[in-house]
Formats: sequence, structure tokens, C-alpha cells
Amino acid sequence: MGDPTGVGPEILIKSLAKPETYDICRPLAVGSVSAIERMAGILQSDLDVRAADPESAAYVHGAIEVYDPWGEDLSDLPFKQVTVEGGRSSAEAVIEAAKLVMDGRAAAIVTGPIHKEAINRAGYHYAGHTELLADLTETPGTRMLLVAPTLRVIHNSTHVSLREAIERVTRDNVLHCIRLLHESLLLLGFEQPRIAVNGLNPHAGEDRLFGDEDADEILPAIEAARAEGLDVTGPEPGDTVYNKAIDGRFDGIVAMYHDQGHVAVKTAGFFDGINVSVGMPIIRTSVDHGTAYGRAGEGRAREDSLDHAIKVAAQMSRAKLAAATG
Amino acid sequence: MGDPTGVGPEILIKSLAKPETYDICRPLAVGSVSAIERMAGILQSDLDVRAADPESAAYVHGAIEVYDPWGEDLSDLPFKQVTVEGGRSSAEAVIEAAKLVMDGRAAAIVTGPIHKEAINRAGYHYAGHTELLADLTETPGTRMLLVAPTLRVIHNSTHVSLREAIERVTRDNVLHCIRLLHESLLLLGFEQPRIAVNGLNPHAGEDRLFGDEDADEILPAIEAARAEGLDVTGPEPGDTVYNKAIDGRFDGIVAMYHDQGHVAVKTAGFFDGINVSVGMPIIRTSVDHGTAYGRAGEGRAREDSLDHAIKVAAQMSRAKLAAATG
Repeated sequence: MGDPTGVGPEILIKSLAKPETYDICRPLAVGSVSAIERMAGILQSDLDVRAADPESAAYVHGAIEVYDPWGEDLSDLPFKQVTVEGGRSSAEAVIEAAKLVMDGRAAAIVTGPIHKEAINRAGYHYAGHTELLADLTETPGTRMLLVAPTLRVIHNSTHVSLREAIERVTRDNVLHCIRLLHESLLLLGFEQPRIAVNGLNPHAGEDRLFGDEDADEILPAIEAARAEGLDVTGPEPGDTVYNKAIDGRFDGIVAMYHDQGHVAVKTAGFFDGINVSVGMPIIRTSVDHGTAYGRAGEGRAREDSLDHAIKVAAQMSRAKLAAATG
Repeated sequence: MGDPTGVGPEILIKSLAKPETYDICRPLAVGSVSAIERMAGILQSDLDVRAADPESAAYVHGAIEVYDPWGEDLSDLPFKQVTVEGGRSSAEAVIEAAKLVMDGRAAAIVTGPIHKEAINRAGYHYAGHTELLADLTETPGTRMLLVAPTLRVIHNSTHVSLREAIERVTRDNVLHCIRLLHESLLLLGFEQPRIAVNGLNPHAGEDRLFGDEDADEILPAIEAARAEGLDVTGPEPGDTVYNKAIDGRFDGIVAMYHDQGHVAVKTAGFFDGINVSVGMPIIRTSVDHGTAYGRAGEGRAREDSLDHAIKVAAQMSRAKLAAATG
């Protein structure tokens, strides 16, 4: 559901209002029935909002079935602001949804926008979903993969200072990212993933003229991945590698730090980009926008990113199931 | 001219073949008559290639007038490769052209693509044009400004390691960049330049959660620039600031390091981007592509970037003259 004071409930309703969503998956909302009911009223939606659990839900278009073990009345919560109640309900929804997947009661989790300050005020001390889920699933090696229509970028690090990001550019970390990206691309339907690794320094170090990490850490990781049979190119300069991917020459890119990959994906003009947490035991996709408090409760929010996140979660779940059952 | 074994002579001929080039400036080629003559033959151009100097040139469409104080025969130089001759002639052409401007015999210099290995083999030990010109004009504070149709980005540093780039994020350096960008935008025709400064760390540091430079160095530079009356916003996260500029909300951006700005400009899909050296006593613009050895001598090179570089040099020269003469 995301934070009920933001656009989360609205985009959830808009995505579940589409019959085609039910063609690709069996969607169960996780969050507050009262918050979703309120928003359905604002949108003048004729969908029937009702409580359900994974086993009792009918998964038929025309209703929004909500897993709501709390039953809290959030119908008077103000829109557009940081609240303890919004923070708590959005964090608990993520935690419960993740538990459903870990318990085998759901195949994947798709998360709506939460607000960092709200969850922190409510006592959940995380920079965001990824950190919360990495903690919950005990997988610190989790990485952020941004998925846009023609660009898929995994990040060696995200929410750390640029100085710390440089320290994390080690052979083992880069190799870990290459492997995770390879596995993810397989689940995304690329049978023989072609991966490029963006160098750390300008011009990927240009023969050690501009720093040694490209030669000392990144290249050995690429060579190790190649020895495992993976199709990996690099280290490639940031100026050109993203355009090569957009032009179809690579299926995925390993970026060395937050801005390198985020500037590329966002500036390429993709508005339906999504965020996938990889390296966890559960499949998790997410919208890549925030709670958009400024427009919450107004009915003007766009559900493109959530539609795409649901689609990718369904695709990855089917591929994972197919791989597991041979 | 650029390196005569690359696409430099070809794009020069194509740009000077256009009457509209002569509508905006009086162009004088600087380089080798023999190399340009050879390429004109390959292109089956009917332009008359002839030697001239700034004072004797007629500057009339239909001829290519070349300042060639060396008179060397380069007509047998192979295409598509690094040569000492190509390196020397391209470096000397840059040096002589810069001297013409410094001596008041020309208004601006527009540079074609040179090859770093070629100029270094010929004894010119520079990472590129910018470093050579900064040395020649004794202005180490020179910075690289990338100019695309809707995106203008100055770089606090360029050809240094990312570790060194972080060290160079100081209040004084960032303020220097803001001032240079403001002056450049005035010359580019923006009467009240709106500038945004990209932060160094993810989310521009997010209240010191991810590094302190945004708060300790960048924000004070912005405040100092505002105290001088400049219109400056930031530090802004890299995820969104370039899209805001493309959408018209800012006229120019200060990027903290090479990849931050280059990934944005290149991934935004601009193919006629150019490079402007700012902070030097002379106006210098450049194509933002390389020698493209792979396609040199074949007649397939595109002159869009050179056309744009000539246009911007002419515009900045006129604006500088207007400012000087009131």
C-alpha cells in the first residue's frame, strides 16, 4: 500500500482497476482497508474493497482484496504529511508482505512508496525498503537494480557517501554484482545476458592515468566472471556505456555507485522505471518514485511505475518457478 | 583541423561547405593544406582549398582558406591510425590557433578531434585540448562546460581519479565553477541565468546521512554565490536535477565530477553536444567526439557537433564583443 498519506493507495487502486493486472498475477493488497476504502471513495471507484488473506482471496477483477491483520481505522489520517500512523502502517505492511512470501503464502512483494522520515518517526530505523528488507531477510548482500524499458542497472552501492562507495569497489563486491545481475537478467527473460561493467573513474581509469580501481578491482572481477562463463564487458567509460545498452548492445549494466546509475536511468527519460531488490531470498519490486505528498489525495497520481513493478514481479516469479520445477 | 588521420578534415570541409556558416562568422581553417586538399578530393568537393592568413583571407563561401605556417606535405599520411605526424600537426594547429586569438588576430578557436596518444607520441604531454590550452594560456582554473541543446553542464573536475575529484570539492572550487557558469550562460544569451548545483553524495548527502561535503563545502559555495546576486539552487540530487534542466527549470548545472555530468549529457541522447573551455582568456569550443579513426577517410562522418561548436563560438564572440563595447 505504501504510506497512506501519500499516493500509494491511489496508484494501488488504479493498477488493480485494470483487468489485465489479473491476467498476469493474483494480486493481494497489504495494508489498511480503511485507507484504501477512503481513497476509492475519492476516486469514485466502484471496486469492492474488502479484507482477505492469501488463502481466502478470490483474486477476481472487480474487488480489491486487502490483507489487513491490524484493522486500524486510518480513514481520518491527513494526506500530504509525515505521520507516525502512516509510517507505522506502511512499514508493517512491508514486513507482513515479506513474511507472506517467506512463508510461501505469496510469490513476490511489490512495494508502494513509503516515506523515510515517517517510518523513522514510527520507530523503524531504515534508509528505505531495501535496507529494511535486507535486515528482515538477513541478506546484507542485497543490491538495487533499476529496471527501465531498455536499461537495467545494478548498483554496487547506493545509500552511502561517495567516499564509502569507492571503498566498496572491491573485486568481490563487483563480482557479486555481476553474478546477481546475470541471475536477474535470466529471470527477466534474457537467455544469454550480455553485461557491461561501468568503470569507477573517468574513462574507466584510462590505463591508470585517473585512478587504479578499474585495473586493480573491477577488471579482476570481470575476468573472474568470464571464467565462470558469463558474458561480461568492461570496465567501460560511463560516457558511452549507457547509450550502448539503450541501443541494445548490452542487456544490463553494473554501476559502481548511486549517482552513476541513477543519473543514467533518470536522465534517459524513463518514467515507468522500477526498482528491484536482488540478492534476497524473496522477489521484490517497487515503484521508483516517492510518496509524492504534494499531490496525494487528489486523484492525479500516475500508476505507470506500479503497473510495471507488478508486471516484472509476475514475470520474475513465473521464471523462478519454472527454473525450480525444471 | 584536428588529427589529419581522423575525421577532423572531413567534418571541417562539410561545415565550411555550408553558406550559413559564413553568415555567422568568418572561418579560417588552421592546419595542413595538403591534408584538407586530400580529403576534399575524397569527398569530391568543389571547394577551393588554399593557404591564407587572418589578414589576407577573403572569408567568402566557396573556398576553404587554411592558415598553414608549416606547409608540410601530409597527403600520404595513412588514415585511421596514431601517427607522430598527425599528433604533431594537430597539436601545433591548436597552439597556433590559440596564439592567433591571444594576439587579437582571431576572435575564437573551434577545435576538431585530436588523439591523445598521437599528441603524446609527438611530444605534447597533455590529456587533451583543455589541459594544453590551460597551460598555454596560463589559466589552471579552466573548466569543461558541456553544451547540449537543452542541457549545459560545467564540471568541477574532469580528468582525475574519483578520489581526487572528491578532494577538489571545496567551497572555493565550487564557487569558481558557479561564477564561470554564470558568465558563460550570459555569453550564451541567458540574461538571468538560473543555475543548479548537483550535490556530491547520493541525495545530495541527505542531511549528512551520506557524507558531509554537500553541507560543508557545496552549500557554503551556493550561499556565497547568492550573496553575489547569482540565482543558484542546490545542492540538488543527481537523480532529478538534469531532468529539471531539460524541462527548462534551470539554464545550467554544476556537476561535481566527470561522470556525473558526462553520463547525464550523453545519456540524455544529445548527439550534437559540444565542449566549451571556460575560465581561459580566449573563447574555445570543440566537438565532443573523438577522431573516430574507425570511419576516417570514408566520407561518412557527421559534422553536427562541429556546426554547433562553430555556432556557439560565434555567439559567444559576439556577446563578448558587445559586453566589451557596451
